[in-house]
Amino acid sequence: MADPRFFSVAGPFTLEVLAEIAGATPAGHPAPGAVFTDVAPLDEAGSGHVSFLDNKKYTAVFSTSKAGLCIVAPEMAVKAPAGMALLLSPDPYRAFAKVSQAFHPLPAPEPWVAPTAWIDTAAKVGEGCRIEPGAFIGAGAEIGKRCRVGVNAVIGAGVVLGDDCVIGATASLSHALVGSRVNIYPGVRIGQDGFGFAMGPQGHLKVPQLGRVIIGNNVEIGANTTIDRGAGPDTIIGDGCMIDNLVQIGHNVHLGRGCVIVAQSGVSGSTKLGDFVAVGGQAGITGHLKIGTGARVGAQAGVMRDVAAGETVGGSPAVPMVDWLRQSAILGKMARKKG
Amino acid sequence: MADPRFFSVAGPFTLEVLAEIAGATPAGHPAPGAVFTDVAPLDEAGSGHVSFLDNKKYTAVFSTSKAGLCIVAPEMAVKAPAGMALLLSPDPYRAFAKVSQAFHPLPAPEPWVAPTAWIDTAAKVGEGCRIEPGAFIGAGAEIGKRCRVGVNAVIGAGVVLGDDCVIGATASLSHALVGSRVNIYPGVRIGQDGFGFAMGPQGHLKVPQLGRVIIGNNVEIGANTTIDRGAGPDTIIGDGCMIDNLVQIGHNVHLGRGCVIVAQSGVSGSTKLGDFVAVGGQAGITGHLKIGTGARVGAQAGVMRDVAAGETVGGSPAVPMVDWLRQSAILGKMARKKG
Amino acid sequence: MADPRFFSVAGPFTLEVLAEIAGATPAGHPAPGAVFTDVAPLDEAGSGHVSFLDNKKYTAVFSTSKAGLCIVAPEMAVKAPAGMALLLSPDPYRAFAKVSQAFHPLPAPEPWVAPTAWIDTAAKVGEGCRIEPGAFIGAGAEIGKRCRVGVNAVIGAGVVLGDDCVIGATASLSHALVGSRVNIYPGVRIGQDGFGFAMGPQGHLKVPQLGRVIIGNNVEIGANTTIDRGAGPDTIIGDGCMIDNLVQIGHNVHLGRGCVIVAQSGVSGSTKLGDFVAVGGQAGITGHLKIGTGARVGAQAGVMRDVAAGETVGGSPAVPMVDWLRQSAILGKMARKKG
Repeated sequence: MADPRFFSVAGPFTLEVLAEIAGATPAGHPAPGAVFTDVAPLDEAGSGHVSFLDNKKYTAVFSTSKAGLCIVAPEMAVKAPAGMALLLSPDPYRAFAKVSQAFHPLPAPEPWVAPTAWIDTAAKVGEGCRIEPGAFIGAGAEIGKRCRVGVNAVIGAGVVLGDDCVIGATASLSHALVGSRVNIYPGVRIGQDGFGFAMGPQGHLKVPQLGRVIIGNNVEIGANTTIDRGAGPDTIIGDGCMIDNLVQIGHNVHLGRGCVIVAQSGVSGSTKLGDFVAVGGQAGITGHLKIGTGARVGAQAGVMRDVAAGETVGGSPAVPMVDWLRQSAILGKMARKKG
Repeated sequence: MADPRFFSVAGPFTLEVLAEIAGATPAGHPAPGAVFTDVAPLDEAGSGHVSFLDNKKYTAVFSTSKAGLCIVAPEMAVKAPAGMALLLSPDPYRAFAKVSQAFHPLPAPEPWVAPTAWIDTAAKVGEGCRIEPGAFIGAGAEIGKRCRVGVNAVIGAGVVLGDDCVIGATASLSHALVGSRVNIYPGVRIGQDGFGFAMGPQGHLKVPQLGRVIIGNNVEIGANTTIDRGAGPDTIIGDGCMIDNLVQIGHNVHLGRGCVIVAQSGVSGSTKLGDFVAVGGQAGITGHLKIGTGARVGAQAGVMRDVAAGETVGGSPAVPMVDWLRQSAILGKMARKKG
Repeated sequence: MADPRFFSVAGPFTLEVLAEIAGATPAGHPAPGAVFTDVAPLDEAGSGHVSFLDNKKYTAVFSTSKAGLCIVAPEMAVKAPAGMALLLSPDPYRAFAKVSQAFHPLPAPEPWVAPTAWIDTAAKVGEGCRIEPGAFIGAGAEIGKRCRVGVNAVIGAGVVLGDDCVIGATASLSHALVGSRVNIYPGVRIGQDGFGFAMGPQGHLKVPQLGRVIIGNNVEIGANTTIDRGAGPDTIIGDGCMIDNLVQIGHNVHLGRGCVIVAQSGVSGSTKLGDFVAVGGQAGITGHLKIGTGARVGAQAGVMRDVAAGETVGGSPAVPMVDWLRQSAILGKMARKKG
């Protein structure tokens, strides 16, 4: 289903193999001996494709889908069209992720050092790396094994990357120590000076930014996102964080493990997030705050105080989400009354 | 008027020629035989320059302008200073656009392949293209005629561009099929993975992003904007869309024809906009919504529900614009009363 | 204290020398003859380090710090731990900036023209410049003395830079005249077309953007920020402005001297800011407004009207800050009452 100009596909796989990959239970109406050749969206899939239903908004699309196999929650099985094979899972999206990864495994990079890449003689590049045209690796930098440094990407002096990292086209890193299996998207900026200066009418006085950016393992950092290095302490991104596009992370910020930061949100200097904090799109968190483990910040929220572990906040200034929803409802009612 | 270091100018043109170009009606006090050499802002223009008045905020500047010729709405003619020639148009800005384009036509690129450009042997580059230093064109990519691929820009494997496209410096494209006369500004990121993964305390699991970005004709995409490729479906940008700087377009988003998306706004995954939707600056639209043709979303609005065709919404959460203005007025009154 | 992979350090310095550099008064318990080797954060510093206390949130950390020397406001001296030397200053952060700059002076670039840099034969490059690999300098560009043009950065045709400028990796400039001691961070986009076109159902008509970007002296522009060139007038950034990451500056905008624009905020076309205006993170200012000297715009504010000199505004739509705080308090109370 995927455009062969851009994607190759593994498989095909039988229902039994896919059930094992997904950790899911076969159901519905599998044709005996059927094999599946790729994944596809519900409304585009044919009899050889695997699809999934995770958002009830798409139940009607599911009920008329021509997908040969669909991964769904058990309670949705009754909505399946006749003749569709099913894989039942309490977490259909996660099960689908495993199946889709099986069809589309990430290839190791084809080792290469492009003749137009610039690698400083005092840099170390591990086995199996691919250093693409125009890429730059500065003095003292250390690149792990099987990394891919994209076209025109810039790895500054002294930067360390672990194994199996991908650095997108034209991304730039400086003053950074990066773990393994980190995926840095095109245009990302890591390690530049934080926004630190003493303000004054006689002119703002720059404070040297002497920290680093420390990034854990299994992190993704979206396109054109910016992460400043610490002012003295480090800026720290924990293992497994997922950061979307155009996000701003200020100096000295700490993100715990598994944080999810949606596009265009920003975390100001010295704020510390616990583990698995979720921040919605275009949200902002001011500086020097503590956001507890498992807290959730709504889209466009403006957080100006600490948030307790597990708390969900919304609005600007952010308040507990239920209060924000109530505020919005009250305002709406008042406006309609006056109308 | 324009700095000759950066701009060349065509012309000069007589009033009659300009009237025809603009589709406008001569009026005021044209000096017989006068010619005009360039456009200029009202407050900088001299007797050889053409200017325009479109925003009533600048009426006083208009009334004292030294511009030789000004394009205005008929009802503003009475405010013109003595001796100024006029071109009357019901849409002065559009008429001015035509006149300014006549003075400043976009030159076709001077064909060139820079010796430091990297063009894969399996890429196709059309006639008359300019491929600038450090630019990269990957295997299987197809570039139409008279395209300009800017310095250090990156065209990934398999990407297709139509004719007369401009790709700005250091922009990067992958997994994309692009129409003709598309202008992609510096630093734009197109076609990277969407933000798709199954969340979980045991770690977030990446879902392969198997769609593409499909861009129509006559589209502009502003500097450092990011457009993710689809997850399975495609991300689609319709003909004639104007997208400003630092905008985020999530995976599977569809923009209809002629949408205008102002800077720093974001459209989340799988949301579909009809034709000629206008989205104000820093607005956000959450995922899986439908925004009808001709709808308008105010600056900084946070849209969390479908918007009907032609509807105008504002606020966060977004409500009909009149309700939002009323809410703001009520809140303001209450605050002053307590003050 | 700073990681020697990334930072070198001057010194050591005695208390007396540091007092003079900082313009501060020695106090506390200096060990006779002690020297200090670097700056460090309060919680990481040892007896050879200089730290500072500026934010009362960190008083407890100060009281248990092992820093040998700390710069503090006079009234905080009583909270110092026994044995700590002090430097008393009414503005500890500014004093610390001076001390930290003494330990970490900005080195002049090591002059170099990388063999893979592209310098047009009709460009001028001043003495002592460092032009890094893959950098591009177009025809007619003029680069002052001791500038550093980073890896894969792009200086367009005709662009002028003063002395001692730093252009970050992959940044791009066109149509711009830049002063001296300007620091442009990686990924910045300066001088591309503004977002100017005549809208219409028959298609949007581009208006040629014929102005420039004029940048004063001692300006910093953060990573991935975008500054469009003027439409006819120029876009102007005054001396000493500090602009953070991912900021959008529209065409024809004027920033006065010393403005501070925090990350992800945006200023729309033709708006004019006076001197020393401060704009908080994610704030937006619509077009054609006047923001007076010394005005302050709160984070996430949405400014839709002129702001007087010295005024502080917050909220969206922005109102005087005290009104916004009162609105938020009233709303919060109403929501709790209904709960």
